[in-house]
Amino acid sequence: MKISCTQENLNQTINIVGHIASKNSNLPILSNILIKAENKNLTFSATNLEIGITAAMRGKVESDGEFSIDAKLLSSYISLLPKERIDLELADEELKIQCQKQKTKIKGQGAADFPLIPKIDKQNPYILSVKDLKDAIYGVSFSASTSDIRPELSGVFLSFNGEELVLAATDSYRLAEKKVKLISNEKQKNLTDFQGEKVIVPVKTLQEVSRILGLIKEDESMEVVDTVEIYLGENQIMFVYNGVELVSRLIEGQYPDYTQIIPDKFGSKLKINTTELTKAVKVTSLFTKSGVFDVRLDYNSDNELKITSSSSQTGENTSSVDMEKSGDSGEIVLNYRYLLDGLQNIGSENIEIEITDSNNPCVIRSENNKDYLYLIMPIRQ
Amino acid sequence: MKISCTQENLNQTINIVGHIASKNSNLPILSNILIKAENKNLTFSATNLEIGITAAMRGKVESDGEFSIDAKLLSSYISLLPKERIDLELADEELKIQCQKQKTKIKGQGAADFPLIPKIDKQNPYILSVKDLKDAIYGVSFSASTSDIRPELSGVFLSFNGEELVLAATDSYRLAEKKVKLISNEKQKNLTDFQGEKVIVPVKTLQEVSRILGLIKEDESMEVVDTVEIYLGENQIMFVYNGVELVSRLIEGQYPDYTQIIPDKFGSKLKINTTELTKAVKVTSLFTKSGVFDVRLDYNSDNELKITSSSSQTGENTSSVDMEKSGDSGEIVLNYRYLLDGLQNIGSENIEIEITDSNNPCVIRSENNKDYLYLIMPIRQ
Repeated sequence: MKISCTQENLNQTINIVGHIASKNSNLPILSNILIKAENKNLTFSATNLEIGITAAMRGKVESDGEFSIDAKLLSSYISLLPKERIDLELADEELKIQCQKQKTKIKGQGAADFPLIPKIDKQNPYILSVKDLKDAIYGVSFSASTSDIRPELSGVFLSFNGEELVLAATDSYRLAEKKVKLISNEKQKNLTDFQGEKVIVPVKTLQEVSRILGLIKEDESMEVVDTVEIYLGENQIMFVYNGVELVSRLIEGQYPDYTQIIPDKFGSKLKINTTELTKAVKVTSLFTKSGVFDVRLDYNSDNELKITSSSSQTGENTSSVDMEKSGDSGEIVLNYRYLLDGLQNIGSENIEIEITDSNNPCVIRSENNKDYLYLIMPIRQ
Repeated sequence: MKISCTQENLNQTINIVGHIASKNSNLPILSNILIKAENKNLTFSATNLEIGITAAMRGKVESDGEFSIDAKLLSSYISLLPKERIDLELADEELKIQCQKQKTKIKGQGAADFPLIPKIDKQNPYILSVKDLKDAIYGVSFSASTSDIRPELSGVFLSFNGEELVLAATDSYRLAEKKVKLISNEKQKNLTDFQGEKVIVPVKTLQEVSRILGLIKEDESMEVVDTVEIYLGENQIMFVYNGVELVSRLIEGQYPDYTQIIPDKFGSKLKINTTELTKAVKVTSLFTKSGVFDVRLDYNSDNELKITSSSSQTGENTSSVDMEKSGDSGEIVLNYRYLLDGLQNIGSENIEIEITDSNNPCVIRSENNKDYLYLIMPIRQ
């Protein structure tokens, strides 16, 4: 194998695939990146056996071959090189790398031991915009469960149907749901018996997708496509974006029918500035009892929401925020961490809180964007 | 006690003194800030029994009194308040704080239990510029020993004499020394038998001084003085700056006569660009043996310094950097972490390395500023 490329391309490609390579004492080769030169094509791959990433790279192939090399060392090394041409050549189980006055030999392992990364047929993709997918991942992932007791809740639910992709996540204390328009649903177009598809994707997979979507930058040598293709296979999902293919296993199981718990009517609606409410909740949260996260929202006034907490150790606090209220008066007690999570991710200047009563879930919506919903279970007193 | 002030002043004052307040299970009050209103003056204090900080604050005193309150809670709370007027009032062992729509009561402890912060007579100060002191602390502190086996090496040596303050620190593997001009030496002026003074100051104390020097910003209500006064007392040192007084214990013991190990002649002098050398050392450091930090500097060529390392696990590397050499050829092996520490702190475009031979300490100097010196003991092969 003998290849050459620019430092910028090599550095970006290693960043894309190398992130999931990691130390594994049972299978040390998982800390490596596989470099493959074949028929003038260059690809870089890495896998943690749950997620596999393969990225094509522009470069000159003088002779074919493949070799695997420690991802962390390669990444640290290449990132420190000047933005110049890099020559790589395989000789005696070592990769010789030269860039201007920098000469190095890195030991590695043959490609034969590298695990196969599964493929999914590239047929009938769901296509959506990069920005929509990134926003949706950001908007819902944080609500997934961090425990493995109910594995299906540790993933994000994706439902493809018609022109729409719905993403949802819940840890059973709060729920986030985001609806995204599909640019194209090729399955619906081409398969007469298409009934929609529902899958559960590990949060880590979506975080990795989101990371990669943010990495690829347009430059003079490259035009960047701003859409992502999603393919579903047998218990697997593949995201394809600008020459990068990320394949991941899915989480098996039945996702709960969360739509049941979303109230279809409410007694009170509070419209509040997001930043003001966030500040007020942060202040009041300083005065909760140690280990307890309750803050009380008092909406008895017509135009002022009072947020209160007290503790025998630290003292007590009342923060007030202007609001526009319609409907009934009342009080509800919420976990301030769940409330802050929602406020941080909603991304709109004002929010609307819909409350049934102190025992039923309250729903927070963005003022303008009705495609996003965040629901919190109250703490019953 | 009843006082009022601006959020900006209160926030800055709490930041200045509160940083050293910390949890102490033997003496819980050490996590508090002491607030004192007396004769129209407002002061805030905190101590960890090694360092005590007292800061004066502008504000309106309606009635005198003193009270102590948890530093972390107070700091978090005040930092979240709007930049408006704040009213504080002591009532029933609680501090009532009001700022616009924010109302709170914080529990605290009476001032009687708060440890006394020692004072040093403000006579005959050493006066120097804030910038010089900050640069010197930054330039030498990192070389002090992090172990307590030889307590005197865990501090920074300060020698006041004539028009000069010399700061030095060494962990016996490397040494940093910085000379700073005194704006005024009042002791020398006023005491006929003045012979100079030498003290050892804990690194933490100097880091705290440096932090405070960076915190106080000029604003419309306040002119900031850009000099620091230093007073020495019985086993104590006091730094005074814009109404803030920091008192610290000194480290007892005799500081080694480090000047003996600074070579007064050398066989080779290498002039190198600091950034280029830093990059090259970082690259080569990737290829040292695990747990070993040796890199070899080969200055046999007339105009190219070669930096090499190799390991049976990862591979090998050679980085080359342009240099101007005068004197002999040779090789020397250094710990790359010590070398990088020096290069990071030297703050000049080019450096000069003075080498005697592979067994004797080498000296790194800034090209322009001869007041700074960094010395590294070589690794004998």
